Amino acid sequence: MKFCSSCGGVVVYRVPEADNRERAVCESCERIHYENPRIITGCLPVWQDKILLCRRAIEPQVGMWTLPAGFMEQGESLGDGALRETLEEANANVQLGPLFVVYSVIHISQVQVFFLAQLESEQCFSPGIETLETRLFSVNEIPWEEIAFSAVKFTLERYIECQGEFTGSVHLQTFDKARDGY
Amino acid sequence: MKFCSSCGGVVVYRVPEADNRERAVCESCERIHYENPRIITGCLPVWQDKILLCRRAIEPQVGMWTLPAGFMEQGESLGDGALRETLEEANANVQLGPLFVVYSVIHISQVQVFFLAQLESEQCFSPGIETLETRLFSVNEIPWEEIAFSAVKFTLERYIECQGEFTGSVHLQTFDKARDGY
Repeated sequence: MKFCSSCGGVVVYRVPEADNRERAVCESCERIHYENPRIITGCLPVWQDKILLCRRAIEPQVGMWTLPAGFMEQGESLGDGALRETLEEANANVQLGPLFVVYSVIHISQVQVFFLAQLESEQCFSPGIETLETRLFSVNEIPWEEIAFSAVKFTLERYIECQGEFTGSVHLQTFDKARDGY
Repeated sequence: MKFCSSCGGVVVYRVPEADNRERAVCESCERIHYENPRIITGCLPVWQDKILLCRRAIEPQVGMWTLPAGFMEQGESLGDGALRETLEEANANVQLGPLFVVYSVIHISQVQVFFLAQLESEQCFSPGIETLETRLFSVNEIPWEEIAFSAVKFTLERYIECQGEFTGSVHLQTFDKARDGY
């Protein structure tokens, strides 16, 4: 951020009075511009014993497999966003289940959440414009070496662990590339 | 947003190509500026059968009682943020427990999360600069008519319901002032 989005003035980074961290502050109108983590919301859609994955058509991680998910938008709930992303990326209407994973990704300042979800049928999906391919995978077919994001891998692992005996508990996790590697 | 934070050019609101909602787009450099929901993270600190509340020294809801919570910052996890806010608002170090409430607030585009937490002692808290007063309340002392936010009220209600038999389940809720009133 170089310019104030309110008045167009030049922005400097400094610690405002009564604050304890650097913010973008406008030198003209003195407005403080806060930057905060964003939320990715999505779901793990299942049909019987199979999981729906989407092969990404866009960066980052183009060509890799992911769960349908994306940035939460203004004026929606976490669940609304997960349903919308599943429709956009996989043309799939699902029955949303419980919140399953809440995953803080420190190095990119995101919180990624995944719900469990039920597909309506074995045929009710197809690639959206950000997706190359949609496919149901049984547990032993999951392409572990081609999974796009650490939170997706974590979500799949937890699902496989608890399958058939889901308790409703959320899996809370933190990942920091600088600390944990990849 | 009236001006581009990258180049200072004039911003217009329109639907970018391959998108389906209006965004702030710079007429000069064509950068798209996304706005997304923000996260409030905090906790419900308890000491034996009592709950710590903070009376707010700042707007909104100045003078009302709340749980220690605030905007999640870049480069921290949800849990880190909850601990930081509890220290800032109540000068309290707590032992963070499980994620307890995840609450989407539609009309202000926020997701508010609360963890359960244990205070270290009966004396280990005091008002931070955004707080007028900190106090332990037993369940029958809670000032229900003076609770600052709907998510705080919801969190206190769920805690009282499940006290002594917490299962680890997260309470997921959505609130929209336009739809639900206040």
